[in-house]
Amino acid sequence: MSPEISTSKYQFDLLKVGVSAEGIAHVEINRPEALNAFSTQTWRELGQCFTRFKSDGNVRCVVLSAAGRMFTAGLDLKEAQSGPLGKPHEEGVDVARKGYYHRLHILEFQEAISTIEKCDKPVIAVVHGPCLGIGIDVISACDIRVATEDAYFMVKEVDIGMAADIGTLQRLPKVVGNDSWVREACLTARKVTSKEALFVGLVSRVLPGKREAMESALETAATIASKSPVAVASTKHLLNYSRDHTVQEGLEYTAAWNALAHNSHDMALAVLSSLKKQKARFPNL
Amino acid sequence: MSPEISTSKYQFDLLKVGVSAEGIAHVEINRPEALNAFSTQTWRELGQCFTRFKSDGNVRCVVLSAAGRMFTAGLDLKEAQSGPLGKPHEEGVDVARKGYYHRLHILEFQEAISTIEKCDKPVIAVVHGPCLGIGIDVISACDIRVATEDAYFMVKEVDIGMAADIGTLQRLPKVVGNDSWVREACLTARKVTSKEALFVGLVSRVLPGKREAMESALETAATIASKSPVAVASTKHLLNYSRDHTVQEGLEYTAAWNALAHNSHDMALAVLSSLKKQKARFPNL
Amino acid sequence: MSPEISTSKYQFDLLKVGVSAEGIAHVEINRPEALNAFSTQTWRELGQCFTRFKSDGNVRCVVLSAAGRMFTAGLDLKEAQSGPLGKPHEEGVDVARKGYYHRLHILEFQEAISTIEKCDKPVIAVVHGPCLGIGIDVISACDIRVATEDAYFMVKEVDIGMAADIGTLQRLPKVVGNDSWVREACLTARKVTSKEALFVGLVSRVLPGKREAMESALETAATIASKSPVAVASTKHLLNYSRDHTVQEGLEYTAAWNALAHNSHDMALAVLSSLKKQKARFPNL
Amino acid sequence: MSPEISTSKYQFDLLKVGVSAEGIAHVEINRPEALNAFSTQTWRELGQCFTRFKSDGNVRCVVLSAAGRMFTAGLDLKEAQSGPLGKPHEEGVDVARKGYYHRLHILEFQEAISTIEKCDKPVIAVVHGPCLGIGIDVISACDIRVATEDAYFMVKEVDIGMAADIGTLQRLPKVVGNDSWVREACLTARKVTSKEALFVGLVSRVLPGKREAMESALETAATIASKSPVAVASTKHLLNYSRDHTVQEGLEYTAAWNALAHNSHDMALAVLSSLKKQKARFPNL
Amino acid sequence: MSPEISTSKYQFDLLKVGVSAEGIAHVEINRPEALNAFSTQTWRELGQCFTRFKSDGNVRCVVLSAAGRMFTAGLDLKEAQSGPLGKPHEEGVDVARKGYYHRLHILEFQEAISTIEKCDKPVIAVVHGPCLGIGIDVISACDIRVATEDAYFMVKEVDIGMAADIGTLQRLPKVVGNDSWVREACLTARKVTSKEALFVGLVSRVLPGKREAMESALETAATIASKSPVAVASTKHLLNYSRDHTVQEGLEYTAAWNALAHNSHDMALAVLSSLKKQKARFPNL
Amino acid sequence: MSPEISTSKYQFDLLKVGVSAEGIAHVEINRPEALNAFSTQTWRELGQCFTRFKSDGNVRCVVLSAAGRMFTAGLDLKEAQSGPLGKPHEEGVDVARKGYYHRLHILEFQEAISTIEKCDKPVIAVVHGPCLGIGIDVISACDIRVATEDAYFMVKEVDIGMAADIGTLQRLPKVVGNDSWVREACLTARKVTSKEALFVGLVSRVLPGKREAMESALETAATIASKSPVAVASTKHLLNYSRDHTVQEGLEYTAAWNALAHNSHDMALAVLSSLKKQKARFPNL
Repeated sequence: MSPEISTSKYQFDLLKVGVSAEGIAHVEINRPEALNAFSTQTWRELGQCFTRFKSDGNVRCVVLSAAGRMFTAGLDLKEAQSGPLGKPHEEGVDVARKGYYHRLHILEFQEAISTIEKCDKPVIAVVHGPCLGIGIDVISACDIRVATEDAYFMVKEVDIGMAADIGTLQRLPKVVGNDSWVREACLTARKVTSKEALFVGLVSRVLPGKREAMESALETAATIASKSPVAVASTKHLLNYSRDHTVQEGLEYTAAWNALAHNSHDMALAVLSSLKKQKARFPNL
Repeated sequence: MSPEISTSKYQFDLLKVGVSAEGIAHVEINRPEALNAFSTQTWRELGQCFTRFKSDGNVRCVVLSAAGRMFTAGLDLKEAQSGPLGKPHEEGVDVARKGYYHRLHILEFQEAISTIEKCDKPVIAVVHGPCLGIGIDVISACDIRVATEDAYFMVKEVDIGMAADIGTLQRLPKVVGNDSWVREACLTARKVTSKEALFVGLVSRVLPGKREAMESALETAATIASKSPVAVASTKHLLNYSRDHTVQEGLEYTAAWNALAHNSHDMALAVLSSLKKQKARFPNL
Repeated sequence: MSPEISTSKYQFDLLKVGVSAEGIAHVEINRPEALNAFSTQTWRELGQCFTRFKSDGNVRCVVLSAAGRMFTAGLDLKEAQSGPLGKPHEEGVDVARKGYYHRLHILEFQEAISTIEKCDKPVIAVVHGPCLGIGIDVISACDIRVATEDAYFMVKEVDIGMAADIGTLQRLPKVVGNDSWVREACLTARKVTSKEALFVGLVSRVLPGKREAMESALETAATIASKSPVAVASTKHLLNYSRDHTVQEGLEYTAAWNALAHNSHDMALAVLSSLKKQKARFPNL
Repeated sequence: MSPEISTSKYQFDLLKVGVSAEGIAHVEINRPEALNAFSTQTWRELGQCFTRFKSDGNVRCVVLSAAGRMFTAGLDLKEAQSGPLGKPHEEGVDVARKGYYHRLHILEFQEAISTIEKCDKPVIAVVHGPCLGIGIDVISACDIRVATEDAYFMVKEVDIGMAADIGTLQRLPKVVGNDSWVREACLTARKVTSKEALFVGLVSRVLPGKREAMESALETAATIASKSPVAVASTKHLLNYSRDHTVQEGLEYTAAWNALAHNSHDMALAVLSSLKKQKARFPNL
Repeated sequence: MSPEISTSKYQFDLLKVGVSAEGIAHVEINRPEALNAFSTQTWRELGQCFTRFKSDGNVRCVVLSAAGRMFTAGLDLKEAQSGPLGKPHEEGVDVARKGYYHRLHILEFQEAISTIEKCDKPVIAVVHGPCLGIGIDVISACDIRVATEDAYFMVKEVDIGMAADIGTLQRLPKVVGNDSWVREACLTARKVTSKEALFVGLVSRVLPGKREAMESALETAATIASKSPVAVASTKHLLNYSRDHTVQEGLEYTAAWNALAHNSHDMALAVLSSLKKQKARFPNL
Repeated sequence: MSPEISTSKYQFDLLKVGVSAEGIAHVEINRPEALNAFSTQTWRELGQCFTRFKSDGNVRCVVLSAAGRMFTAGLDLKEAQSGPLGKPHEEGVDVARKGYYHRLHILEFQEAISTIEKCDKPVIAVVHGPCLGIGIDVISACDIRVATEDAYFMVKEVDIGMAADIGTLQRLPKVVGNDSWVREACLTARKVTSKEALFVGLVSRVLPGKREAMESALETAATIASKSPVAVASTKHLLNYSRDHTVQEGLEYTAAWNALAHNSHDMALAVLSSLKKQKARFPNL
């Protein structure tokens, strides 16, 4: 990968973002002193970042990792404690009114994390060290997951007295085809090693250390970035659509979608290159 | 686990039920002389039992096992033979009228088994020896499955000339993410060892014998029972809801649900305990 | 298996079809000189063939394999190049009108491959050598997949500048419960060995060579063909229905379906044989 | 209609039920001294009554009316006041635990009213005088509605500080195809006369007084009861199914359903009678 | 309308089809001697006709009417009597096997009628005289309905002992927003005059006689045929899609669809003509 | 209504917004010199305005009207002409890339209009004079519609060569239960008078002039604003949810929702006031 090009479009406080000439964006969760605990600012920045990726033709594939000792310790409990999660219902406050606004808050949080899924560009998560609570919500919204040997995973929410509500209970069972395991993980909050994560299919592969994991992720990202960006964005978009619809509905949507996409210059170029056994170079989206 | 407390609420003929002080209910299918074959009485009692669990705050988690030599030999064929399954359509009987009532019978049977799924309290199945036919319908409706080394599984219905209709064809493919295997198992009725069951993800783990399997299940149950019952019931409920909806619908339902659940005393207690590194004790639901 | 009986019903140019006395149809993709590349004629014939299987009581189970060196090299790119995929949008042509007809073309292609899924008789795919592009769409629509050691798989579409649109993006994630792997395979078009395919659950088993794989598939087919064809067709049909509906909807459809199917002579015969410990022989559908 | 035959199966305290020889059941809400206000006992009895209708072959069609001065004044507010609706959240009580059980209560209430829809036998509501609050939930679950000139309707829930939760918000918009009106009615709780109800399609016709409305309803019921009960129950069941599914799904379910129902003796009898221009008499379901 | 141009593509025995230079196809059900009763041949021809319309750019809008004294007397009962509907279940025949093939027959019949809906070109039905049974299935699949004063409608199926299964129970409730009326019509098979049909919204308008009704339909057809055929086909297609999906899903599909359609030459032409206050002429699809 | 209070929160260029002390927001589309044609700025401001309403407890109900001679002349064609709608596909531009961004543009536009539906506070549209094209998309997303005698409606999109894509094809058929009329209106773009709009149910009532229409809308708004805002927002939210789900799903979501909302102080207050026959005053949300 060529050196990262820093663009002013992606200046954040708690994220470090660079985009390479090949179209690989690297997003690093960068709050190591707090063990990358997710504050409101963290997920707001994350949402803004991936929203911008969606319409940025220079970005073809994203690698998401974290700085410091671990992927994330989960929700920022100190912040949460002073917010709605930190106290039971207060006397005198109308719980319906409080709940009305609290629901809007959860929806906003969910929407920020869902931008990872909705950005159309594939996202590869690199997990090292602990990945707890909200960390699982985040990586479940990614497309591909790789981990280091020392990585471990905990669906931690039940330990703070709540059901996970930012995507884990929706996406994890569709990411991992072992429901007995998924439910055990979500109901016990127990530690899952990277080896176990590999066996059940939560991660695609386990690398010795962070450097190797990053290299592996970047290699996959480079492969994806070298393909037609029309084909790549279409593939991710159609996989997401099809997950949530019947096979028949997925096929019909795909036919409508490709009636447009098949007019791309890329196909002609790719077919020609393929017959000539040459490597095609595709312009940005 | 403390000694089981027998309550009059759970007196059945073909089930043995006890609830421990920690909130772990143990349901034992108890018709060993008939190899735990499922008669109408068996599934009616099962339905009543899990319906009561749903609104019994003393129950936080359930372990389901069977007495005698095996989990179950399947449907009680002797009873079935004298019922609708035992004979082809009779002359002179209007098949539409017969079918109308037979459909109501199937629906009632399905509903009884679905109470396992709908009871909101996690259910851990312990399978030893053969688990045939209706046994697969039953364990597919549970949340977590553990097995003994001598356990084996057969989706036996095709061997009695019918398609499984009490849940296997609906739930097994959502429990096990290996469709090639699921279809082979359902179409051939072949024997599946516990080792194979572990590989494909039908069970979470395999223990040498029944005693070890029960201990392992009770340990997991104890972990779950020690968590906030609001968080646990919410997690099971939301996993079930999300399985049957799109990711977006699952997120929206979760936001509405947690707008209420986040007002629980448990969260404040859990967050506080977590920060103090103490173990919280949560009251019953 | 008894010798294949060739019937005039199944005379095709690019497929070789035989049906045994036991009801096992063998479909061989037979265009080895072009590496079984899929031309329009190939998929049209495939669609006709499986449509006929649907209402042919002599067919109880199908084995699908390919002649020559490989399962398939994918789409016939030479044909495609002279069709809509071979050129970008032409000047002067109204893209909306062109897209209208192109969409109809994709839908017709999809429908041809979907007949494999809709034919109600189980289909076992035997993959040897490369299985590329449209090959994945085809085997994903089958029920059971076995492979040879030298088999390998590539979701090749992204390499010709398009998203797979004949079923892979809809069915593969429901066939294989490892989303991280599915997305990686679809986004990178990388080579997947039969060993990896076994690990992730794409195939049920890997046999040394083609002869062994065919034998294994035919053995499974023979088992299926010996069962009640009412039970077998119902099981496949209900698995497909349930994949695309909620558990509750699947249960209700099944109850309506079995209200009819439970009147079959086969059930009485099967129950009686089972009690007598004899093997039942069931008439054709 | 022949004299009503009172059966012990349908003895209730707050309902008066009779079944005629022709198969017309008449259910009268019979708590006139309390203006037919719905207490818990009322809806529990209603649920039991319609559940029994479902499997009672002697019942072919149902007329639902009310005794005394009006159809219903709505929920029994005095009872409600001492229950969950009567007080805001209490201090010291955990709102999540309270909500858990309150939700189960709403679901039980909903299920009781849904038995009207699920009983498969058509239900004709006769509304005279005020029909308020829960009254709208009830009549929306019926198949056909007739009213007297003095009848009026109010979706009253918003006036007691809540959104209707027993079916009005789900069924009314699918009963009446005028969304502007539905929303106005539900958001303002304003009085809707029977004339307006006729215009928007809430009722099929308006008769001068209760006697005429009853006669009209019984006449329609007699027509329905004279038809094949297989055809009638199938029609109601399939209309309900189709309301909640796509056209394509409705067609497929109907094909599976009629594959059974078309074997009924009734069709042969009806076709024969039709060709002979005679009136067929069909046995009970 | 200019004189009809008869094309060899549309030669049928029981249908008379012409296409005008303006793109208006006129389909006349032409079996007056049998009161346009629907035999198998009728609906097979209808299915072929509308399938061809789908990919025939010369057809922009369709008017469907019937020759002779009425629209249709319904199903051809004489033919039906010798088929599956004419006899109850026969002794000795396995009802499950019979049902399996009967279901395929219903599905084929449904699919033929659904081609009206799926052909993308708007279809206007002109109903004169009786329109019974299958006639309702047919006109419910059309887009717009006009009737003569002497027209009347009967959902007749219940009178031949069956539930309507070719679309009436799926489409009629989505065509007419008065559920009380729909259910009464379907459950009683009573006669509905064209005046009543207008009131409930089954027809768009009522004209004195057949000549006037045809003129009115052709006038509407001419208006539609003068618009951009891309816009017209898209509008029909998207209305059908949106009927069967949530608002959000309908919006997303529409965005994907129009991302293509907005590149049409027609829009530029139409916008330009609109600004110049000229009438645009659009080429065929 | 008390004098409107202008708040800085709602300062827009093309909208005039005021909020009364009673909680009635009045939004006036205010670009009369351009006949209220919708430019990008118009719908962006509209989206921002209704997004803010969602979390503004001071707003309980909204009235939406337009300044000048008409509601709206539709899309700003001059602006559109210089945008994607104004030109056919350009030579040399890759249509797939162009379509990718154009789809994002449509989705953004749709989302802006959908804020009307999603804001939870009921919205009453007042239509005077022409309401064309995008005007129909806008009023279909409102809850209640009133019109003046001189108002008329045209689903104009087909006249500019496109299918309506901002909500009309999704919402209009769910707002008006007369599909024959809906399709005719959308396919012909013909003029619909306010009288016809009343007959088919597009508007709730027709008033002589704009002053009367505004008074009528404000009166309804005042009624709604006087109710419990918890009950009102819940009712709108649950109606929207239920429109897009089966009856059963709607009931279950409602039960989860009201498990929270029933703890509101408002219910206790309302029940008490109702029993005391007093008028309750509810605090803001």
